[in-house]
Amino acid sequence: MRSISVLGATGSVGASTLDLIRRERDKWRVVALTANCSAVELARLAREFDAQVAGVGDEACLPELRDALAGSGIEAAGGAQALVDAAARGADMTVAAIVGCAGLAPTMAAIEQGGTIALANKEALVSAGEVMTAAVARHGATLLPVDSEHNAIFQCLHGEDLADVRWITLTASGGPFRDCGRAEIEAATPAQAVAHPNWDMGAKISVDSATMMNKGLEFIEAYHLFPVGLDRLRIIVHPQSIVHSMVEYRDGSTLAQLGPSDMRVPIASALAWPRRMDTPCAPLDLAAIGTLTFRAPDEVLFPATRVARECAQAGGAAPAVLNAANEVAVAAFLAGKIGFTHIVAQCEEVLARGIPPAPASLEDVISADAEARRQAEGLLLRA
Amino acid sequence: MRSISVLGATGSVGASTLDLIRRERDKWRVVALTANCSAVELARLAREFDAQVAGVGDEACLPELRDALAGSGIEAAGGAQALVDAAARGADMTVAAIVGCAGLAPTMAAIEQGGTIALANKEALVSAGEVMTAAVARHGATLLPVDSEHNAIFQCLHGEDLADVRWITLTASGGPFRDCGRAEIEAATPAQAVAHPNWDMGAKISVDSATMMNKGLEFIEAYHLFPVGLDRLRIIVHPQSIVHSMVEYRDGSTLAQLGPSDMRVPIASALAWPRRMDTPCAPLDLAAIGTLTFRAPDEVLFPATRVARECAQAGGAAPAVLNAANEVAVAAFLAGKIGFTHIVAQCEEVLARGIPPAPASLEDVISADAEARRQAEGLLLRA
Repeated sequence: MRSISVLGATGSVGASTLDLIRRERDKWRVVALTANCSAVELARLAREFDAQVAGVGDEACLPELRDALAGSGIEAAGGAQALVDAAARGADMTVAAIVGCAGLAPTMAAIEQGGTIALANKEALVSAGEVMTAAVARHGATLLPVDSEHNAIFQCLHGEDLADVRWITLTASGGPFRDCGRAEIEAATPAQAVAHPNWDMGAKISVDSATMMNKGLEFIEAYHLFPVGLDRLRIIVHPQSIVHSMVEYRDGSTLAQLGPSDMRVPIASALAWPRRMDTPCAPLDLAAIGTLTFRAPDEVLFPATRVARECAQAGGAAPAVLNAANEVAVAAFLAGKIGFTHIVAQCEEVLARGIPPAPASLEDVISADAEARRQAEGLLLRA
Repeated sequence: MRSISVLGATGSVGASTLDLIRRERDKWRVVALTANCSAVELARLAREFDAQVAGVGDEACLPELRDALAGSGIEAAGGAQALVDAAARGADMTVAAIVGCAGLAPTMAAIEQGGTIALANKEALVSAGEVMTAAVARHGATLLPVDSEHNAIFQCLHGEDLADVRWITLTASGGPFRDCGRAEIEAATPAQAVAHPNWDMGAKISVDSATMMNKGLEFIEAYHLFPVGLDRLRIIVHPQSIVHSMVEYRDGSTLAQLGPSDMRVPIASALAWPRRMDTPCAPLDLAAIGTLTFRAPDEVLFPATRVARECAQAGGAAPAVLNAANEVAVAAFLAGKIGFTHIVAQCEEVLARGIPPAPASLEDVISADAEARRQAEGLLLRA
């Protein structure tokens, strides 16, 4: 029996994780479940899985959570520090699935316990970078990537030496505008941008997929998870999203991981690692799928991956600034304040205004993030 | 420094192996090189690689070999037993690349030394089946598959538990007639049959690829190498031959191995296993390749894989009979004696005449093979 905490239990990755845990209920003891503010849903899950503690990030939701947990014997907690405390209780496995920079501190707290972290929060690793990877090394924690691309790479690297890697290739669906020309892309609306062809995701990540900033952030994430160097990392557009990523070795062998567009597959891979567990996902039927296509990304029409690569190259706080500027720009786009192509343009402008010194601590990362948000908001006011 | 013997050094797999050894000359000490009758070429290779012994299977070629090796200090040997003796000298790695049933006894001799066998001779494993796998277990030998499909599966299984496998899927190019109708297939000539679209191979294996008997034999080979059961083994047609095979796990993850149609890739994988070594093979450029397609095999037009599966199911000597009958039928087809569709039909007829008892020894396998050849030749005489 292993213990597990799910940070971000009411989101999509959290729900998929708990769906898998539910199928192997006897193998897991649930320590902490957290959410931002969905108190009633969180309480329902905490009762179902007999969690030790349930925590909401938004302290205003704590009374509702307390009510919903009344008589259960499950501890209720609220506020940003409560999430950190919940993560710091330690568990054999912590699923870090809080979206955005809000997940950074709880994820770091889990890392400091030295357990296994199934990382679904790419922004945390993008922003914290070496601060996080150094903490992983220092505390003997294990980072298992849950993003489908990084989990694919992790599986393809299983038992291999990074020194033998010639290429790591991230696949990208190319997003809903992959076949559009410049005029269409410039006129893209929020409704068009959130209609992702292959994955059912939230609005922010769907827009990131449309700009290909999602792939850019994943590129930075891969750079930290699999230190083969930037010149061995690349992106290929694969509209069907069946091949989730690939690793080519120096002998000419390429290993690829394929599967359905169902997050339960990479989550199950992390939960059961280094073994496998059953999922209810349908077998892959390539004969029915018929055709897989691949093409080089167009970094003129979709500059986000170029900008992200430059940030990875620059290192230090640059990825944190990019991530923060992008979050602000995407929110502005979704609110109808800026056009689609302005999202990445605004990121570049924030980056051009100067990058803070390389962060040495979680606090430095959070302050670089906050400063970049201020810069980005300021740009919007002047726009 | 590791020692190596190459059985079948002058053939295509042998040449590819030695090409790789040549690039890492200081890492290998060559024990034995063998050929059937290419004495001059064999002597040249034996001198270049400073082999201890060079052996020709055809004893009539021994004088020529002796002449060619004069003054070199390299031992010359000839005859079927000489190949067995050469293999029995033992080496850390033996590349078993003698084509057809002639490779059976030398391969078994190498297995009995308990080293690592890079197996490129699928007929040996198809015919000997459990006799060979039992010898591998008994002598603590390691069998590394060099056939591109089986090597792909081996790589995709690296570090995994066979109990977690949902499907092993062998890919098949479908051969030169994959898009033809019945009339065209019935009228197929030897010249058309040997024109393989993706691989440059000998005539026999090219015809096997055209009938899909090659995939049928590989299916039986996979059944012995990866004992997951017949109901977890399947074949998919993939005309581009980029994906060399796949393994699907019970969590819904599929791992695939991709690469160029160059035997040096799987050979290098076996030579360096569990590490990797450089090859001169060009990196995989999926963006340039563009499209990969997949479809279910048509076992009405191409019954060979059905017949092979039935032989694997029947077990015992059935695969040996199939392999022998097929060799005779392919030779008859290449000689213009029977039509293309008669190849598999003749195999089925030989099988219908009765299968010898399950072989318990190498001698039993060889006698089942010989008896099946007699039956097949007899059928031809009456045709």
